[in-house]
Amino acid sequence: MGRLRLLAAMLITCLCYWAGVSTQAQRADPLPSWNDGAAKQAILDFVGRVTQEGGADFVPADQRIATFDNDGTLWVEQPIYIQFAFAIDRVRVLSNQHPEWKELQPFKAAIDGDLGTLAASSEKGLLQIIAATHAGMTTDEFSQIVTDWIATARHPRFNRLYTEMVYQPMLELIAYLQANEFKTFIVSGGGVEFMRPWTDRVYGIPPEQVVGSSGVTKFEMKPDGEPVLIKEPKVEFIDDGPGKPVGINRFIGRRPIFAFGNSDGDQQMLEWTAAGSGARFMGIVHHTDAACEWAYDRTSHVGRLDKALDEANARGWTVVDMKNDWRAIFPPVAQPQGAGGAPLSERADCKK
Amino acid sequence: MGRLRLLAAMLITCLCYWAGVSTQAQRADPLPSWNDGAAKQAILDFVGRVTQEGGADFVPADQRIATFDNDGTLWVEQPIYIQFAFAIDRVRVLSNQHPEWKELQPFKAAIDGDLGTLAASSEKGLLQIIAATHAGMTTDEFSQIVTDWIATARHPRFNRLYTEMVYQPMLELIAYLQANEFKTFIVSGGGVEFMRPWTDRVYGIPPEQVVGSSGVTKFEMKPDGEPVLIKEPKVEFIDDGPGKPVGINRFIGRRPIFAFGNSDGDQQMLEWTAAGSGARFMGIVHHTDAACEWAYDRTSHVGRLDKALDEANARGWTVVDMKNDWRAIFPPVAQPQGAGGAPLSERADCKK
Repeated sequence: MGRLRLLAAMLITCLCYWAGVSTQAQRADPLPSWNDGAAKQAILDFVGRVTQEGGADFVPADQRIATFDNDGTLWVEQPIYIQFAFAIDRVRVLSNQHPEWKELQPFKAAIDGDLGTLAASSEKGLLQIIAATHAGMTTDEFSQIVTDWIATARHPRFNRLYTEMVYQPMLELIAYLQANEFKTFIVSGGGVEFMRPWTDRVYGIPPEQVVGSSGVTKFEMKPDGEPVLIKEPKVEFIDDGPGKPVGINRFIGRRPIFAFGNSDGDQQMLEWTAAGSGARFMGIVHHTDAACEWAYDRTSHVGRLDKALDEANARGWTVVDMKNDWRAIFPPVAQPQGAGGAPLSERADCKK
Repeated sequence: MGRLRLLAAMLITCLCYWAGVSTQAQRADPLPSWNDGAAKQAILDFVGRVTQEGGADFVPADQRIATFDNDGTLWVEQPIYIQFAFAIDRVRVLSNQHPEWKELQPFKAAIDGDLGTLAASSEKGLLQIIAATHAGMTTDEFSQIVTDWIATARHPRFNRLYTEMVYQPMLELIAYLQANEFKTFIVSGGGVEFMRPWTDRVYGIPPEQVVGSSGVTKFEMKPDGEPVLIKEPKVEFIDDGPGKPVGINRFIGRRPIFAFGNSDGDQQMLEWTAAGSGARFMGIVHHTDAACEWAYDRTSHVGRLDKALDEANARGWTVVDMKNDWRAIFPPVAQPQGAGGAPLSERADCKK
């Protein structure tokens, strides 16, 4: 073969290979941890419809707002909300400076790890713990405390970092929406300043796209001329239940076309999303896999899913059955270092 | 010339032309309405430094947060805040349903256009007007009222639409920052729901990047099952002065590296921006052009610039002298239609 023909042949081979890879990429499953079924199909159909230019359901990219609850929707919320585990750990750390807490409820229960007493504690008691652990420092200091804690704290059942207790199928869903020019937001009952230090790294959702509950902060000028924001022991906004549409309106100022939750605390967000005009997607993560995660709904103390489940069924919203719709629950992670490291999971091969 | 050589010559001509256009584009002035001078140079230098990969002052794109005050920084605020002009117009419209207002202050003053009496009105009086005009409807209804008003209302001095009373040099600055992957936010003392219906169209800043003052909203389910957010006559948050860093922390969750204001109400936002680590830009629009716009600072009732000007001078922040630093004030617009249309501007050729 002459040099030129060889070159031409090589070029053609390259181009064909390139085209093949490209076709393969287009065909790759964007949701590999989702089993084929109604839930996965509903997501793929919806995204296909709203992104098809000229189609009846096309939505311009800047209006593709997607909102996700966090606790129980993007990461675990059992046996207690992770932010509450953080607060308990903080009570223990701070108890060195508060010896009186060892005999004072609800602090005593937190120090003793007595979740029953804590759960039975009045709302006032829980607010006391939040006030003691989430106030009295600057916003920068609190952000650092969260960053340090979340880098090392592990879930008691799975011995994983809490940032590894996120749902792999939901990570894929967020990435899939982003690849289709959706703007993804968290809209959570959890504290906004507890989430922002890590949501970008873990979910790919930046701080300015995180909506949550908040305490009052106050601007102060320190004697050395440094301005700070002090976190005060006072609730400002509860971004839960009817507070979620309020938070969406206040922080985002647009109505989502896509929303995902998992509990009755998300019902109004889903209703608010459904009430807009044009194509809409409302999804609920239903916890049905006791072996690999937890199974709970109508009678659960944490993450109760009752009225929202009835409404979802009545209105044809997408209810994700974790046991049947998800092929994997958590992302793969390395075994913890050290000889004494407990196994990562009770069932490391869960669903594999 | 043979066909092949002709083709080659054409190709080379095309490529050269293309390269020429490209070089020209690179050299085009991104801020054509800014006169050469210290202010323009400071902006160009700053953007050059923070976007230079590997440079000492490089800032990753996701951290390039820029915040702009609105009234007096992006659009005019004289002789009264534009939102206040909106409220007065609304009082007049609503007075048909409130005949008692004709004799009741502060409504009487609004109906009569008696700005002196209005200005002398107590804070309680002004809040009465805001409550009467900004509450008692759904958020969607209010958004429509604003959209309708802003499509037709004109500034009394310039006979321009209010959305044409924006500063051309600042539009160029926003576009320049966006082209350099800054995320641009409005952080205004004005009402967030008054701004969001039009900021994307006018400034290229979408609703979710607008931070402002707000009233309380309440989620309600209408008898027909439609969920709505009702605007209540109660102030929720004043995004002004020390409220601006609070609002930035609450809504954005990151500290800006670039901030622009024009009054003492922006001082804390500028201080908060300056106190971050790394390269920072703090700018102030100083109104110095009475012929083309207005000249005011230390003693002005609206948009007073006194302490912030002292701090800017002491700390070397960039103070933009509108008269000397800007080549044009407003964007060019067509003359209003109709034989009786007043001239667009007292000085249509201002600065040309």
